[in-house]
Amino acid sequence: MGLAAVLYGPGDLRIEQRTVQPLGEREVLVEVRSVGVCGSDVHYYEHGKIGNFVVEEPLILGHEASGVVVGRGMRARRLEIGQRVALEPGVPCGHCAECRGGRYNLCADVRFFATPPVDGTFASSVAIHEDFAFALPPELSDDAGALLEPLSVGIWACKKGGVGPGSRVLVTGAGPIGNLAMQVALASGATSVAVVDNNRDRLRRAAQLGATTTLESVEGLKGERVDILLECTGNETVTGAGISALRASGIAVLIGMGPEVDARLPVAAIQSRELTVVGTFRYADTYPAAIALAASGRVELDGLIDARFPLAETDAALRANRENPALLKVMVDIQEED
Amino acid sequence: MGLAAVLYGPGDLRIEQRTVQPLGEREVLVEVRSVGVCGSDVHYYEHGKIGNFVVEEPLILGHEASGVVVGRGMRARRLEIGQRVALEPGVPCGHCAECRGGRYNLCADVRFFATPPVDGTFASSVAIHEDFAFALPPELSDDAGALLEPLSVGIWACKKGGVGPGSRVLVTGAGPIGNLAMQVALASGATSVAVVDNNRDRLRRAAQLGATTTLESVEGLKGERVDILLECTGNETVTGAGISALRASGIAVLIGMGPEVDARLPVAAIQSRELTVVGTFRYADTYPAAIALAASGRVELDGLIDARFPLAETDAALRANRENPALLKVMVDIQEED
Amino acid sequence: MGLAAVLYGPGDLRIEQRTVQPLGEREVLVEVRSVGVCGSDVHYYEHGKIGNFVVEEPLILGHEASGVVVGRGMRARRLEIGQRVALEPGVPCGHCAECRGGRYNLCADVRFFATPPVDGTFASSVAIHEDFAFALPPELSDDAGALLEPLSVGIWACKKGGVGPGSRVLVTGAGPIGNLAMQVALASGATSVAVVDNNRDRLRRAAQLGATTTLESVEGLKGERVDILLECTGNETVTGAGISALRASGIAVLIGMGPEVDARLPVAAIQSRELTVVGTFRYADTYPAAIALAASGRVELDGLIDARFPLAETDAALRANRENPALLKVMVDIQEED
Amino acid sequence: MGLAAVLYGPGDLRIEQRTVQPLGEREVLVEVRSVGVCGSDVHYYEHGKIGNFVVEEPLILGHEASGVVVGRGMRARRLEIGQRVALEPGVPCGHCAECRGGRYNLCADVRFFATPPVDGTFASSVAIHEDFAFALPPELSDDAGALLEPLSVGIWACKKGGVGPGSRVLVTGAGPIGNLAMQVALASGATSVAVVDNNRDRLRRAAQLGATTTLESVEGLKGERVDILLECTGNETVTGAGISALRASGIAVLIGMGPEVDARLPVAAIQSRELTVVGTFRYADTYPAAIALAASGRVELDGLIDARFPLAETDAALRANRENPALLKVMVDIQEED
Repeated sequence: MGLAAVLYGPGDLRIEQRTVQPLGEREVLVEVRSVGVCGSDVHYYEHGKIGNFVVEEPLILGHEASGVVVGRGMRARRLEIGQRVALEPGVPCGHCAECRGGRYNLCADVRFFATPPVDGTFASSVAIHEDFAFALPPELSDDAGALLEPLSVGIWACKKGGVGPGSRVLVTGAGPIGNLAMQVALASGATSVAVVDNNRDRLRRAAQLGATTTLESVEGLKGERVDILLECTGNETVTGAGISALRASGIAVLIGMGPEVDARLPVAAIQSRELTVVGTFRYADTYPAAIALAASGRVELDGLIDARFPLAETDAALRANRENPALLKVMVDIQEED
Repeated sequence: MGLAAVLYGPGDLRIEQRTVQPLGEREVLVEVRSVGVCGSDVHYYEHGKIGNFVVEEPLILGHEASGVVVGRGMRARRLEIGQRVALEPGVPCGHCAECRGGRYNLCADVRFFATPPVDGTFASSVAIHEDFAFALPPELSDDAGALLEPLSVGIWACKKGGVGPGSRVLVTGAGPIGNLAMQVALASGATSVAVVDNNRDRLRRAAQLGATTTLESVEGLKGERVDILLECTGNETVTGAGISALRASGIAVLIGMGPEVDARLPVAAIQSRELTVVGTFRYADTYPAAIALAASGRVELDGLIDARFPLAETDAALRANRENPALLKVMVDIQEED
Repeated sequence: MGLAAVLYGPGDLRIEQRTVQPLGEREVLVEVRSVGVCGSDVHYYEHGKIGNFVVEEPLILGHEASGVVVGRGMRARRLEIGQRVALEPGVPCGHCAECRGGRYNLCADVRFFATPPVDGTFASSVAIHEDFAFALPPELSDDAGALLEPLSVGIWACKKGGVGPGSRVLVTGAGPIGNLAMQVALASGATSVAVVDNNRDRLRRAAQLGATTTLESVEGLKGERVDILLECTGNETVTGAGISALRASGIAVLIGMGPEVDARLPVAAIQSRELTVVGTFRYADTYPAAIALAASGRVELDGLIDARFPLAETDAALRANRENPALLKVMVDIQEED
Repeated sequence: MGLAAVLYGPGDLRIEQRTVQPLGEREVLVEVRSVGVCGSDVHYYEHGKIGNFVVEEPLILGHEASGVVVGRGMRARRLEIGQRVALEPGVPCGHCAECRGGRYNLCADVRFFATPPVDGTFASSVAIHEDFAFALPPELSDDAGALLEPLSVGIWACKKGGVGPGSRVLVTGAGPIGNLAMQVALASGATSVAVVDNNRDRLRRAAQLGATTTLESVEGLKGERVDILLECTGNETVTGAGISALRASGIAVLIGMGPEVDARLPVAAIQSRELTVVGTFRYADTYPAAIALAASGRVELDGLIDARFPLAETDAALRANRENPALLKVMVDIQEED
């Protein structure tokens, strides 16, 4: 038995008791500690769907999570009871064409927390295959463990963009993902990282977290070219300006998702400068690097957190950023007494 | 002294005598034999410019060329007098940031035949650095030597797309470039290559040249997904449909250039399927492979040729395709008596 | 119930009745049709071990197999009863660090046919996860289906070596793997493939199968350099000579395994010419390409077969190549009456 | 007119007056400021040759250099008189097959300082193509400018090894190259870098410069596996131990050159773990990244320097390390009065 925050429909979140299911052979039961609020959680909460993913049955949201192992399946062997862990939220089938091809983030049979109909982590406990529960070193807080998930998005983006020593990077959008992608770029050797946002508070945070330049629009670059664009706004105009700022053979990595199916992109520049535009969808095999980067201090995670709520107030957590856009990251403390 | 077809303005092409300039130390003088007419030649002929490249002084067009070495600079050492050669039309500076980075096709100081203000190959003879004149083996005709240039475009595109054994490829546009890209895809191991064009004559040619499927529109794929798109139309709608036909993690290679600066592209698919869209601009280091593919019979070049004109009728050659769009490739025989 | 050829110790192979185990949820039961004899089977038969892999309990050998689906687990959904299939012999765990990293061939928990203690395919039927049973198109014989396994080794090697259009390749060793690697190289666009072996019969076979040059030793290249070495002998001297034949920045792919832990390699050449030497261990995600290559006729499989034995004579099949080294590939017809 | 330290034979170094040659069109004349002593300089000084490179005519040594532009060729346009610059010592031809292939470090026609018969930088001034003279930002000292050359070796090695966020790296050999490769690995995101050397002073330096672990032998890893080996000793035993310490699919980068043509390498491990061994020869296109890394403080260069000599005492500089192996880097101050 345990509590969970269950979404019944747009704006209708209820705290309920849920029973624990039997564990699979190699699953572990994890008492959840800390869960980050992601934009996708907010979108489900407000609209009851994201694109083709529709909440048709009551759904537990939340997928950025850490916790403590409190139970083990019969053949679990990697983790001991009491081990603090970060949870990689999507467990792929492991055998389909995408999995065999080394692209498990594109597995059609993935079970991903808080993607209908799979319940998420705003819950007292969750079960997960032990290979997707990563031991947290003592350097990392429970919150940091939860934030390895958005950090993974940044790692994946930097990998797709080929960020390396001496790279000049442009990050558009200074929300949590933008600030994490920026930090990973720096940790990967980028020596110039310009961050663009129209919110000055967020730019200030970006500067504190290491951005070498902060700008209110891409035009602030004044024609200076960059090697890599990490696009975190999903905005068509910003994306176009960002791509146009790339040097010959530069790479644009699309991270932020906009509401539209199509977008106008500068194809003449893409061709004459031989640019690459690459989409990203979640991430694959990023957790070991995420842990190593955070534990070694290359990336700051706790510093992104601006507000905390107990599980009983998950709905307030889901509304917090809408009410105060300056908040960078909002967390839910699952085990905290109300 | 020698003849050349010189463009003075839109539609104003004149046959003139030109004097030969002294050769650079490592240049060779090549008596031109065969030159292919490229869409860019036609565009300059009709409009006097392509984008920012404007014909301000009289310009000799033509850049798909083969010929025979008839003179050598003081320090030329690789080629003997009498050697038949194919000409790679762009000679980069060799030392700038792009050249050092292994991307000489993006060299801003490149001297490229028939790109203002550099004269091209509709001329009795041209001079070129000997490292960009490639010895033609006896298996290859003079025409085939000239067509190594558009073949290079196909090789570059297949390389950017990662075509390999078992690849399923979609080629949109069955002009000379589409038909060459298709053949290179097959030679690279692609086992399924669908070619789309709205011209049935061109589709018939594509089928003869090896296409495994020919279709009048991308919709003819009926939802079957491909690994790689080789886009040769420059048409926004076709490009969007082609990108949408890619499997997860597929790659779209943009080859054809449209008239517009921007184009609507399916970004939601690019992100949720993690697609890559990559522009191409000319090619780099493709001639050795082009010669090997053509000489070994993996790629058919002579079979693309539908019409021939002597140098004196270069203007007719430049109008031929406009008058009969079914013509695949038009050649100018530089040394043929009128 | 069904028959199987079981290895009890070096040279001690017995035909026995075995009972069929219950199928896993997504497993299929495959009535085995054709199985190729691999050098590793012969090595186990002769020595009872390969390196650290020791046959401690009776073991069924065989891992190059095709057959027909005759049973389905409760949640199997991809294959119908009666479907002819080729079996990829190693089923990885799907979730460990190697699997997540896209390198499932290196999974430590893989269950690989005929690698102790996992039984193989010299048996009337075997069970396998349906994602590792690949539907055979009508163009492919049962034998060809079995030989997709060694073909996969060739595909993997060519991929590691970066074989592409115009590549010049050296294959050392003209056994089944060498002849398959050679064919994949040609199908990938290699325009020059020299095959070296000290057995003239094998060289003749290689020439028939497409080798552009056949040589009795690497020295026969007379200093001509190649781009890629596909080393299939495991012999130290041949490997060294092959590496030394690489052009600057060439790649040596080690496929054949020798008896020694160490080997003398030409490190001065590796450094001054910036060569790459890469090991290969089995393959990953090669079956779709293998099927496509064989079904499209790019690779000849049936033509490699020189002898066939019924299951009851598996021991003769395992001795055949030792008795007649000119035999390229020996098959066991599992369902044939003795 | 200017002074130069000229090698006439083993141990025979003479300070002489040299006249300045006319500049090429795009060359600049650089008044040399600081030059690092490299092991290759010492080797030429002691033996009069390195492998096939034999000093047959008097030769000026030195190739790690910085200085100030004091003259410009007729068409030089990138650098002003008075600009401080670092010199990339090898100017490739820019047009051969290797240059076109993006591998200019393998250009057979490269003119590389202090490689016979090309004179080096232990001289008052040198001429160089301006594209290989890189403007030094004010953050970098003249010494740091000179040390961008060995830093480039480290950058190239890390690139070949694929060092990235979270990489675990083993560096064997803690001389200048090892200490620079280590720093680049850290700057590229490596979170664990173990350095092995049998000299405790050097290990202490490595620890000060950021090594996360220092060991007197590879065995000190006690079976812990690493992702990447950066081998800087050229010693066969160390190389073998380092390769054996790699995890499955790990990469060994050979940087240090030993005296032997061949070396015993652990091929069984290379194959069963699918390892890659890659040679390195100089570097290509590393200077922009080198400047950015050093100027941003990611890499410490000045801290490597242990001794300085004026040009007049270049022979003492060349003997210094032999007399005191604890010295990490020895510099020659070209303009300092004796």
